Amino acid sequence: MKNTVTTTWKENMQFESDNPSNHKLTLYDASADNGDLVGYSPKALMLSSLAGCTGLDVVSLLKKMRAEVDDFTITVVGELTEEHPKHYHAVTVDYNFYGTDLDEKKINKSVNLSVDRYCGVIEMFRKFATIKTNVYLHQK
Amino acid sequence: MKNTVTTTWKENMQFESDNPSNHKLTLYDASADNGDLVGYSPKALMLSSLAGCTGLDVVSLLKKMRAEVDDFTITVVGELTEEHPKHYHAVTVDYNFYGTDLDEKKINKSVNLSVDRYCGVIEMFRKFATIKTNVYLHQK
Repeated sequence: MKNTVTTTWKENMQFESDNPSNHKLTLYDASADNGDLVGYSPKALMLSSLAGCTGLDVVSLLKKMRAEVDDFTITVVGELTEEHPKHYHAVTVDYNFYGTDLDEKKINKSVNLSVDRYCGVIEMFRKFATIKTNVYLHQK
Repeated sequence: MKNTVTTTWKENMQFESDNPSNHKLTLYDASADNGDLVGYSPKALMLSSLAGCTGLDVVSLLKKMRAEVDDFTITVVGELTEEHPKHYHAVTVDYNFYGTDLDEKKINKSVNLSVDRYCGVIEMFRKFATIKTNVYLHQK
């Protein structure tokens, strides 16, 4: 299977990228003077990609296991090297689950299955960064 | 330097991710039944990230070298493995430049500097995939 993405220079430090959904995305250099432009920083976007990948796994697994949660957030912190080319060398992924009667065992199992077996984005990150994952349960 | 991204489960197979710009991004599972939802596939998003990173380098370098182009697009094709965790194993990046009197030498130099020295996203991709880059000049 292949993914193809086309990205077009719009003006100054701004690009527009498509996605298989044909929904357009604006990428920009947050450090440049962009005026009122809003868009996404390419490197930060990689962390959104990681969170989306593992998050979708976990939601799907929790549904199969009939382990309901009310809310679920993922915070990803990526530490960049000082030298060029600046890349992530350490990444922390915090999974936060909120609800009543949270099933700790099933939640941990879902996260572990994603981290160790299913999430291709984490698998790729593992090749260039140390990955640390934490699971926090917030019983209501 | 650190990047921090928080991603929140919205409903079904849909997440919303912030970005340092505070612009929200919807991530979803394109293979699931999402109704009319539009959003970004996490893995395809990594290719947008790569294109944005190297594209911003190249625009900045061309500006410094006073090598003008009219238009510039980048097509990234990522080939995924068949087995889980599915990850990119081969990535092709096609740089297309359009204009009159395109300066082939400066354009190639800009792309090479980004690919070899500046672009952190390509540096990360190199750890898990073979990267092939092509430069195409389209003289008007």
